[in-house]
Amino acid sequence: MAPKNKTRERIIEASLELFNAQGERSVTTNHLAAHLGISPGNLYYHFRNKQAIIAELFAQYESRVDMFLRRPDGRALTVEDKTFYLEALLAAMWHYRFLHRDLEHLLETDPELAARYRDFARRCMASATSVYKGFVESGILDMNDEQVEALTFNSWIILTSWVRFLCSIRSNPGDLSEELMRRGIYQVLALESGHVSPAARPAVTALLQRLHVPLEQVLG
Amino acid sequence: MAPKNKTRERIIEASLELFNAQGERSVTTNHLAAHLGISPGNLYYHFRNKQAIIAELFAQYESRVDMFLRRPDGRALTVEDKTFYLEALLAAMWHYRFLHRDLEHLLETDPELAARYRDFARRCMASATSVYKGFVESGILDMNDEQVEALTFNSWIILTSWVRFLCSIRSNPGDLSEELMRRGIYQVLALESGHVSPAARPAVTALLQRLHVPLEQVLG
Repeated sequence: MAPKNKTRERIIEASLELFNAQGERSVTTNHLAAHLGISPGNLYYHFRNKQAIIAELFAQYESRVDMFLRRPDGRALTVEDKTFYLEALLAAMWHYRFLHRDLEHLLETDPELAARYRDFARRCMASATSVYKGFVESGILDMNDEQVEALTFNSWIILTSWVRFLCSIRSNPGDLSEELMRRGIYQVLALESGHVSPAARPAVTALLQRLHVPLEQVLG
Repeated sequence: MAPKNKTRERIIEASLELFNAQGERSVTTNHLAAHLGISPGNLYYHFRNKQAIIAELFAQYESRVDMFLRRPDGRALTVEDKTFYLEALLAAMWHYRFLHRDLEHLLETDPELAARYRDFARRCMASATSVYKGFVESGILDMNDEQVEALTFNSWIILTSWVRFLCSIRSNPGDLSEELMRRGIYQVLALESGHVSPAARPAVTALLQRLHVPLEQVLG
C-alpha cells in the first residue's frame, strides 16, 4: 500500500505545482505523467481524470479554510486575531492560487464541483459574518448588521477575484508573487478602514502599513 | 449603402442580445445568422469573425463609460452626482453584461482585446480616483489618498466581478435580473459607508436604502 499512496500524493503535489505555474487549462494528464516520470496508465490508476485531481485539491483547500475561518469560543476577538485570519487567508490563497484564477472554467465544466463551491462560499460567508460580528462585539469595528452583510459580500468578492484582477490588469499575467497576494489582503482590510473604532485604529493602521504594496507594483 | 449598414447594426444588436441571454461562448456566428434570417456569408461580409463583433461591442461599452466617468469641470461634486455615476454604471453593466460574465475567456482568446481592456481598466481607475477625490474635496467623503487608492481598486473589482459572483453563488446562474445588478451598485456604495462625512450621511443612507436588495434574493 505505502508506495501506491506515495504515488497518489506525488500526483497531487505535482498537479498543484503545475496548475499554479501554468494554469490548469494548459496542463494535461499526459504532461503530469511525463513530469512525474510515470506512465499515463499509472496516473489513471490513481485518478480517473484531471477533474478528480482538481476535486481532491479543492477538498484540501476547503478543509484548510474551514479549519481556521471560525470564531473562537468563549473569548473576545482581538486585533491579533485579525492578523491571524488575514495571514491564514493569504497563505491558503497563495497555495491554491490556480483555483481562483481558473474558477469560472472549473465550475462550468464540473457541475458537481460547482455545487460544492456554492456550499463552500455560503459557509465561508456565514463564518465571515460571524467573525466580523465578533469584531463589532469586542469593540474593534463599529458597524450595524446591514453594514456587516455588505462587508461580508465585498470581502469574499475581493478575496476570490484578486488573482483574476491582477491577471486582467498586468501585461504579464504569469508573474504573480506572494507580495501581490499581500496587496489583496491589504484590500480586504481596507474594506473596514472607515469602520474601525478609535481605540483599535493605531493597531489596524500599523497592520495596513505592514501589508501595503505600492500601486506601481500592482499595475506591473 | 443604407441597407448594408442596417444589416451591420442588426448583427451588433442581435449579438448583444444573444450573448447576454446565453453567454458568448454558446453563441456561434451560424446561430447569429440563423437568428437574423441572413446567410452566414452575409454575416461574414460585415464581420470577419465573432471576435470582430465582440471588439465592436467592447468599443461601444468603452466609449459609453468614458463619456460619463469623468469629473465635471468647475464645480463641486454633490450626492446627486453619486446617484448619477452609480445609475450610469448600473445601466452600462446591465446592457453589456456578457462582457463581465465571460471576461477571462474573452481576454485569453484575444490578445488585442486584452491590451485594450488593460488600458480601459487603468483609465477607468484613474477617472474613478479623480471622482472620489472630488467627493473628498466637496466634503462628502472623509478619506486620505491611500484610502482613495484602495477604494478605487475595490470598487473596480466589485463592479467587474459582481456578475461572476452571482453566477458562482446562485443555483441558477442564467436568471440575472436588473434588480440583482442593483445590489452590485449597492455593494460599491457600501465600500464608502464608513467614510461618509456626517453632513452627507442622511443623503447617502437614503441612497443606500433605495439600492438595497435583500440577501435572500442575492443568494437565490
